[in-house]
Amino acid sequence: MTMQLGKQSAGLDGPVYINSSASIVGKKEGEGPLGLLFDMVGEDDMFGCASWEEAESSLQKDAVYMALGKAEKKPEDMRFIFAGDLLGQSIATSFGIMNYGIPLLGVYGACSTCGESLTLGSMAVAGGFADQVVCVTSSHFASAEKEFRFPLGYGNQRPLSATWTVTGSGAFVLGKEKEQKARARITGLTVGKIVDYGLKDSMNMGACMAPAAASTIGQHLEDFGCQPEEYDKIITGDLGSVGQTVLLDLLREKGYDIADRHMDCGMEIYDAESQDTHAGGSGCGCSAVTLSAYILKQLEEKNWKKVLFVPTGALLSKTSFNEGQTVPGIAHGVVLESP
Amino acid sequence: MTMQLGKQSAGLDGPVYINSSASIVGKKEGEGPLGLLFDMVGEDDMFGCASWEEAESSLQKDAVYMALGKAEKKPEDMRFIFAGDLLGQSIATSFGIMNYGIPLLGVYGACSTCGESLTLGSMAVAGGFADQVVCVTSSHFASAEKEFRFPLGYGNQRPLSATWTVTGSGAFVLGKEKEQKARARITGLTVGKIVDYGLKDSMNMGACMAPAAASTIGQHLEDFGCQPEEYDKIITGDLGSVGQTVLLDLLREKGYDIADRHMDCGMEIYDAESQDTHAGGSGCGCSAVTLSAYILKQLEEKNWKKVLFVPTGALLSKTSFNEGQTVPGIAHGVVLESP
Repeated sequence: MTMQLGKQSAGLDGPVYINSSASIVGKKEGEGPLGLLFDMVGEDDMFGCASWEEAESSLQKDAVYMALGKAEKKPEDMRFIFAGDLLGQSIATSFGIMNYGIPLLGVYGACSTCGESLTLGSMAVAGGFADQVVCVTSSHFASAEKEFRFPLGYGNQRPLSATWTVTGSGAFVLGKEKEQKARARITGLTVGKIVDYGLKDSMNMGACMAPAAASTIGQHLEDFGCQPEEYDKIITGDLGSVGQTVLLDLLREKGYDIADRHMDCGMEIYDAESQDTHAGGSGCGCSAVTLSAYILKQLEEKNWKKVLFVPTGALLSKTSFNEGQTVPGIAHGVVLESP
Repeated sequence: MTMQLGKQSAGLDGPVYINSSASIVGKKEGEGPLGLLFDMVGEDDMFGCASWEEAESSLQKDAVYMALGKAEKKPEDMRFIFAGDLLGQSIATSFGIMNYGIPLLGVYGACSTCGESLTLGSMAVAGGFADQVVCVTSSHFASAEKEFRFPLGYGNQRPLSATWTVTGSGAFVLGKEKEQKARARITGLTVGKIVDYGLKDSMNMGACMAPAAASTIGQHLEDFGCQPEEYDKIITGDLGSVGQTVLLDLLREKGYDIADRHMDCGMEIYDAESQDTHAGGSGCGCSAVTLSAYILKQLEEKNWKKVLFVPTGALLSKTSFNEGQTVPGIAHGVVLESP
C-alpha cells in the first residue's frame, strides 16, 4: 500500500479518498473572489459567540458538522480527528470539536496545519489504523491579531508585505473506500523540515515561509523523480504576493520553473486591490477553505487532474518574536488527484 | 500488521520497538527520588541559555542528541520527528529541533503529548511510512508558569492541589527492527477523546484530567477485552495525588479496580514532603522523562513485562482560562512490553 520515496516522501498505492469536505468563512472572505463557493458565510465575525476564540471554535464545529453531513456520516463513524489551529494551546480546536467525542490527535504546524492533518490522516487510513477520519483546521482574523500582534483597537498600520488572517475553517472526511461523492484522491505525501533563513519580520511572513515551501517542493520533485509539468497546479498556502516572488526565485535556483503553474491560496481568497489585504490572505483557514471550496471543485470537475498542495506555516509566537528570535517556516506537500 | 480494535484502539501485530531513549531534567528533578536515573541533570534551570524558552528548546535538542547517540544513529537516519511542548505555538520544539533537519510533524496534546507522539510515531512505523522515527517532548517550570499562570517574581501562593511543572525532556527512537539495545516494544494504542466534567480550576489539573484518564483506560480495557491484571502497572502521566483518587473512584464506577497497580509519573518524580511540590509533578516532560529513566528500565530488566502508559493532558490556555472556560482533559494510552 505504502512506498517510502526518497528522503521525505511517501507514495500511496492504495490511495486515500477525500470523500467530503466543507468550508465556512467570515464576512470579508465571503465578499472576496471565491465568496460564492464557500458552504457558509458568516454575517459578522462573532458568529453569535461571546469572544473571538469561541467564534473560531464554532467555525471548526460547523465545518466538521457540514463535512460529516455531506458524507452522510455520524461522528462515531470517524475513528480519529486530526485537528489544530493557531491559538496558544490550540484552544479553538479543543473547545470546537470536543462535543463530537471523536478520538483526537492534535496537530500543530502553524498555517501548514491543513497539510499536516491531511498527511497524518492519510497515514492513519493507508496504514490500516482507521477506515475513516476527519481533518479540520481554522483561523480567525481577530483571534490571530490578538494572539500574535496588536490589539485591534490600537489601529496599527500594516506594511504592504503583511497578510490578512483568514476567518474560516475547512474540514475533510478521508476514507479508505471511494464513496460516490468523493472529491479527490490523496496519492502522495512529502513531510516538510523546518527551514530558517534568519528573517525576523513577522509582518513579512511570506518571505519567512517561502524557503520552506521551496525546500518541500524541490524535495518532492526529487523524491518522486518528476518535473513540475506533472502537476496542473502547484499550490502554496499563504505566501502572498511577496512570498511568491521569493519562492519562484528559490526554485529557479534549484532548476525548477513553476511560474506558469504556481497558485497561492492567499492570493486567491481576497481581491488585494479592493479589499485592502496587502500581500494576501494567511492563517490555517486560508489554505483549508480554498482547498475545500475551490481546489477540490477543480479536481472534481476534472479541470485539473493532479495538483501538489503545499500549505505553509511560520513557526513564531508572540514570545519568540519579542525575544528576538527568527521566524522559521515549514511546509507539507500533499498530492491530490481527480477522484 | 495492524488491527483496529473496538472504538478507539489498535493492536500492533508487528510491534514497534523503542530502540533507545534519553532524559534530561532540571536541578529540582535531579534532587528527587528518580534523580540518579536521568541521563543528564542541569546545574541550574537556564541550561546556559538567555531565556527560559531557549532553555526548554535546549532540553529537546539535548534529549534528541543523546537518544540518537545511544542508538548510534544520525539525524538523517530518522525519517520523521514527532514533537511538541506546552508553549504557545510550540516554540520550544521549533527552536529546539530545527537544526537536526528531520522532517517534522508537530503535535499538541498538552501534557499527553508524549503519548500522542509515541502513538503517531508507531503508526508511521507500523504503517510502513518510516523505518525509524524520533519522538520528543518537553516542559520547563519557569516557561510554563509564565505561559499559564503568574510571573515567578509575583510569588503567588499555590494551593495543595496544584502540581509543579517538571523541567525536562524525553526523547525516544522508534524502529521497525529490534536493535540490540531495544528498551521496549509498543504493541497497542488507544487514542483518547476530550473529556470535560466542567471543572474550571487550573490549580487542580489532576482532577480536571482524571476523567479523561478514566475514559481512556476504561475504553482500552474494553477494546482489548482485557482486565487490569493483564498489566504489571497502569501508569498515568501527571494526575498527582488529588487526581489519582478521582481516577481510582471513576474506574471503580466502571467496574475496574486498578488501585494495586496504578502509578502516576507526577507522584514518582518528586518527594512531595521535602520538595514542596504539593500534589506532584506535571508537564509534558514529567511522563516523558519518567518513561525514559524509570519505566523503560523496569521493562528492560524484566521487572515488569507489560504496562499501560497513559500520559494525561489539560487542554487549557491562559486565554481560555481567563475567558471563564472549563479545563477539559485528554489522555492517550500506549501498551509497552519488555523488548
